[in-house]
Amino acid sequence: MTDTANSGDNCDISPAATVGQQYESDSKPPMLGDDCTVRSGTIVYDDVVIGDRLNTGHNALIRELTEIGDDVLIGTNTVIDGRTTIGSGVSLQTGVYVPSNTTIGDDVFLGPHVVLTNDPSPVRNHDTDLDGPTIEDNVSIGANATILPSVTIGEGSFVAAGAVVTVDVPPRTLAIGVPAVNQSLPPELEGGNQIR
Amino acid sequence: MTDTANSGDNCDISPAATVGQQYESDSKPPMLGDDCTVRSGTIVYDDVVIGDRLNTGHNALIRELTEIGDDVLIGTNTVIDGRTTIGSGVSLQTGVYVPSNTTIGDDVFLGPHVVLTNDPSPVRNHDTDLDGPTIEDNVSIGANATILPSVTIGEGSFVAAGAVVTVDVPPRTLAIGVPAVNQSLPPELEGGNQIR
Amino acid sequence: MTDTANSGDNCDISPAATVGQQYESDSKPPMLGDDCTVRSGTIVYDDVVIGDRLNTGHNALIRELTEIGDDVLIGTNTVIDGRTTIGSGVSLQTGVYVPSNTTIGDDVFLGPHVVLTNDPSPVRNHDTDLDGPTIEDNVSIGANATILPSVTIGEGSFVAAGAVVTVDVPPRTLAIGVPAVNQSLPPELEGGNQIR
Repeated sequence: MTDTANSGDNCDISPAATVGQQYESDSKPPMLGDDCTVRSGTIVYDDVVIGDRLNTGHNALIRELTEIGDDVLIGTNTVIDGRTTIGSGVSLQTGVYVPSNTTIGDDVFLGPHVVLTNDPSPVRNHDTDLDGPTIEDNVSIGANATILPSVTIGEGSFVAAGAVVTVDVPPRTLAIGVPAVNQSLPPELEGGNQIR
Repeated sequence: MTDTANSGDNCDISPAATVGQQYESDSKPPMLGDDCTVRSGTIVYDDVVIGDRLNTGHNALIRELTEIGDDVLIGTNTVIDGRTTIGSGVSLQTGVYVPSNTTIGDDVFLGPHVVLTNDPSPVRNHDTDLDGPTIEDNVSIGANATILPSVTIGEGSFVAAGAVVTVDVPPRTLAIGVPAVNQSLPPELEGGNQIR
Repeated sequence: MTDTANSGDNCDISPAATVGQQYESDSKPPMLGDDCTVRSGTIVYDDVVIGDRLNTGHNALIRELTEIGDDVLIGTNTVIDGRTTIGSGVSLQTGVYVPSNTTIGDDVFLGPHVVLTNDPSPVRNHDTDLDGPTIEDNVSIGANATILPSVTIGEGSFVAAGAVVTVDVPPRTLAIGVPAVNQSLPPELEGGNQIR
């Protein structure tokens, strides 16, 4: 089940991780950059391309056709369900869920147990395309928040812990509550993220 | 720790899955139907009976004395805590939690990180029986929703993402918010689920 | 990667568990008391000290520099991110997240998918110390609740399922809603927890 992965220099890949999970007969081994750390139980599918300095927790899952930049942390039990693009300097904490067809920019923080979604009317209407959120650069999303499909979280915005975001969040805005209301960003939350 | 499982024809069970986790000296290996796919890290306990075309993600857990129908998807990291009945055509997405003594009908969809519960006053009152929810046929529950113990979600109803459902939801109703309020089902969410 | 763990008498440690995950060249194997059960996939890091009768589910993670008392249950997929103190008679159900620098007292119950946090302004302000909540004795926290950093949940209090707790909860209080409001504890929820 495991192909030969193309990983860069100075990588520390646990023998109990799977880098190169085949899913089709002609799928291609993933490519990882230099200086990666992949901890036990983590599975990286074929047809995944990741930059330098990847750092994973245990039992993370990265499915096929995902592109990830440099300096990215993927926490324990976090699942990236494939066909997704993630920038550089991104921190996905423990137990995050990223569905297929999601776009995440640079310097983004997703707190523990954040759930992104891609289906506005699950299994009720098969004409609906699966479309995950777009998370722009320098966004932080608090723990256990839920983001509805097709929503855009604008550059530099902040989503409070436990919020359920149902509509777009403009840039440099605080989204808080259930359903989330957009408010002015408090001064102490201004400025970009400092992840890398 | 692994007994011989009775699986049907055309099953693809990962060598890194455990089908037949013994939990008592006289427990019996699980029975799986035809055409199953069980991915790595998934654990199926003894005394579980599952129909045809089971499809699991990675690291799913199905504990003892659970009965599951045909055409069921059990997502990555989803936990079914045993002594539960699940119908046919059911899709449990990533990271769902199903406690013991839960009943799930046919053609039910539970979105990512849905949490069902079975204890109304945890560890405060040992006279209380553990009693999970009853999820009737053709119900869809949105991502990260929480369902309180003993609640019945009626046939064809829809629970919004992030809702906390504390009282029964009548058939063909939309439950939304914290605590969830029952509303008329919007026309675009009418009709049964199309999972199989 | 696995050192020799110092476990007590009558321990049942799955060969597919890792007790003694080294994280620094001079880290020391964990110490577990008597009568422990550690199920498959669970990882205990070095420099962890745990009392008697530890009982874990599958794929639990206990990181370094954590101290845990006697009679503690750590559920499947639960993550304890290290540098944390947990008392005796504690039940952490399935999929709980405990960040670093958290304090949990005796006879505490955390329901499935409870998320504790330790960073008030994630990656926006590097001067902020990471500071998890303080959960006092005999507290119960309902399923999928979120507890903000530095919050204290007072002795004997009860947090409702799905609540988002943003301010301190006095002793013997019910915290409910998003954001959580402190209310009188209903008579049926009075009294200490009965876990051990």
